[in-house]
Amino acid sequence: MSVTDAERSALRHAFALATNGPRGLNPQVGAVILSPEGAVLAEGWHHGAGTPHAEIDALSKLGPDAARGATAVVTLEPCNHTGRTGPCAVALIEAGVARVVYSAEDPGAVSSGGAERLHAAGVDVEGGVLREEGEDLISSWLTVQRLGRPHVTVKWAQSLDGRAAASDGTSQWITGPDARADVHRRRSRADAIVVGTGTVLADDPELTARTADGSLYEDQPRPVVVGIRAVPQEAALRRHPRPFMQDEGEDLRDLLDRLRELGAHRVFLEGGPTLAASFLRQGLVDELLVYVAPTLIGGDRVAVGDIGVTTIAEQRRLEIVGLDRLGDDILVTLTPKEG
Amino acid sequence: MSVTDAERSALRHAFALATNGPRGLNPQVGAVILSPEGAVLAEGWHHGAGTPHAEIDALSKLGPDAARGATAVVTLEPCNHTGRTGPCAVALIEAGVARVVYSAEDPGAVSSGGAERLHAAGVDVEGGVLREEGEDLISSWLTVQRLGRPHVTVKWAQSLDGRAAASDGTSQWITGPDARADVHRRRSRADAIVVGTGTVLADDPELTARTADGSLYEDQPRPVVVGIRAVPQEAALRRHPRPFMQDEGEDLRDLLDRLRELGAHRVFLEGGPTLAASFLRQGLVDELLVYVAPTLIGGDRVAVGDIGVTTIAEQRRLEIVGLDRLGDDILVTLTPKEG
Repeated sequence: MSVTDAERSALRHAFALATNGPRGLNPQVGAVILSPEGAVLAEGWHHGAGTPHAEIDALSKLGPDAARGATAVVTLEPCNHTGRTGPCAVALIEAGVARVVYSAEDPGAVSSGGAERLHAAGVDVEGGVLREEGEDLISSWLTVQRLGRPHVTVKWAQSLDGRAAASDGTSQWITGPDARADVHRRRSRADAIVVGTGTVLADDPELTARTADGSLYEDQPRPVVVGIRAVPQEAALRRHPRPFMQDEGEDLRDLLDRLRELGAHRVFLEGGPTLAASFLRQGLVDELLVYVAPTLIGGDRVAVGDIGVTTIAEQRRLEIVGLDRLGDDILVTLTPKEG
Repeated sequence: MSVTDAERSALRHAFALATNGPRGLNPQVGAVILSPEGAVLAEGWHHGAGTPHAEIDALSKLGPDAARGATAVVTLEPCNHTGRTGPCAVALIEAGVARVVYSAEDPGAVSSGGAERLHAAGVDVEGGVLREEGEDLISSWLTVQRLGRPHVTVKWAQSLDGRAAASDGTSQWITGPDARADVHRRRSRADAIVVGTGTVLADDPELTARTADGSLYEDQPRPVVVGIRAVPQEAALRRHPRPFMQDEGEDLRDLLDRLRELGAHRVFLEGGPTLAASFLRQGLVDELLVYVAPTLIGGDRVAVGDIGVTTIAEQRRLEIVGLDRLGDDILVTLTPKEG
C-alpha cells in the first residue's frame, strides 16, 4: 500500500509541529493522527526531554478508543525503548492504531526496532516517507549523538598572510560585506556563539545575527563568553536579546557538555586567536570557516595562535570541503583530517 | 590585397627565427625576404641591442638590387627610428622592397610610424597578420617597457594560517606534488629566480626548474642570491646549470635594473619572508602566487614578514585574479591593487 495524499500532507504538517519543540537533548518530533478517511483527529509534538513523545502527546488528546483503526503519521520512527516514557510502538498498538507512516528511521541503538514491533503486532507500517526532510529535521541532533557533544564550527577572518589585525590592533573591515553577511546567516543557524573575553574587550562585539538591513534574524544564538575577565557594564553584548553566559574556560570539553544540556547542537566559535587555538589543540573543532581577504598586513597579530605544533610532522592537516568567492574575499571551508 | 599562403608560412618561420635572438633590452624579431613568386631569398633576426634589426640582418645577406620588388615578412612593424641603427622603414624603401607584411604593431613612442612611412613611399603594407603570436612573442618585453623594470612575481607556500614552517624551522612538504610541479613549470618560464641568503642557508634549494620525472626543463632561470652572507661551498645552488649571481640587496630597484640589462624580463622571487616583505614594501611586486596548504601550524614562522603596516588603513590590498585547486592545495593568484 502506498502513501495517500492525506498522509503526505499530514507528514508535512508534522514537520512543522516538530519545530514547536526545543532543539535539545532529544530530537524534535511531530505527529498527526488521521481517521481512516484521512481527517485529522489529533496532533502533537515532543516538548523536550522527560515529556511524552510526539505520538503519545497526540494520542493523549483523544478519548479512549478514538484512535482505533486510525493512522499515526510521525516524523521519526516510533521508539521501542522504555526510558522516562514507555515505548511508543507499544502505546500505538494498545491504542488500536491500524497504520503507522513515518519519515526518518530511528538511529538509536537502544530505541530502534519500533517499526518491526509494530509490524509484528499486525500494524501496517510505511517508513522512509519524505525521508530527506525527516533526516534534515534531526540532522544536528544526530551529529550530537555521534560526537557525544555539540558540533563546533570555528570561524575567523584573516588577511591572506594569516593576520587578524594590524600591529596597533586595528582590524575593521578586513573582509567585505558579502563575507560579513555570510557570517551573520551562519550565526543565526547556531545555538550558541562563543568568544573569549579578550575579543569582548578588544572588539566589543554584539554577537547578534543580523540581516543585510540590520534587523535581527528570528533565531539568535546564545552568547557565551570564555575567560575570567569581567564583561564591562557598557559592553554591546549586554544588549543581545539573549542573556550571555560566562565560563572560566578551564575545561572546554565540560563547557561543551553543559551547552549540550542547555540544548545546544551547534556551537559557533568566533575567536579570538587564543581561544580558537585552544579548541583546535584539544581536537574539539568539527568544521573551520576561514574568510580570507585579499590583503597583506604582516606583523604579529596572527589570526591563529599557538596550536601546540613545534615540528612540521605535528601540523594539523585539514581537508578542504568548500572553496567559494564571497565578493572580493574567499571562504575556505575545511574539516579536520583523521589521524 | 590579402596575405598569401607563402607569406603566412614565411611569417611563422620568422617567429621561430626571432627566438634565436636574446630575450633582453630589445624585442625579439625575425624577418624573411620573399621573391615576388614567394621563394625565400633571405632570412634574419635581431641579435640583440646595438646589432642590426631583423630586416637589415636579412637584407644584408642579399646582393645589391636583389630585394627589388621583393616582399619583406617581419614579426614586428619595421621601425621609423634612428637609434644605434637607421630606420628600418627607410632601409626597406631604399632596397626597393615592393611589399611589407608584419605581425605586431610597434608600440614604441619614438620608433613607431614605420608602416605609414612605407605606405607614403608607395610600398604595399599589410599589418596585424597572426597578430596574437606576434604580440605573444614580445609580451614580456612590452611589460618591461611599461614597468621600466623586469616583471616581478613573488611566490610563497604557506599553511592556511600563514606560516611557512613549524617553530623548529622544519617545513618540508607543506604543499603537495601538484603545487610543486606548478612552481617548477613557472620557474622555467622566468629569466631569473631570486632568493635571500637566509633561504639558501636554511633550505639549501637547487633553484632549478624540473619536470615531474626530475629532469631539467630546457630553459633554466638564472639564480640570484640576495644578502651578504656567503653561499656555502657545498650549496646545492652551486650545481645549478647557470652560475648564480649574488647581490648585497641594499637597493632592490637597482638590482632589478641590472637584471634587466642582463636580459631578464621575468623575475621569480621565491623568498624567504624577509626578502618578499622588502619587495612588497617597496612596491616592486607585480604578481603574487600564494600556494595555500590546508593545514594549520601556528607559531612564529610566518610566510610574510613585516611589510611596514602598522595600522589597518595601511594594509596592502590585492586583487584576486585566479583561484585554483592544485591537488589538496589552493593557488591564489593576485595583483597589487592600485592606490
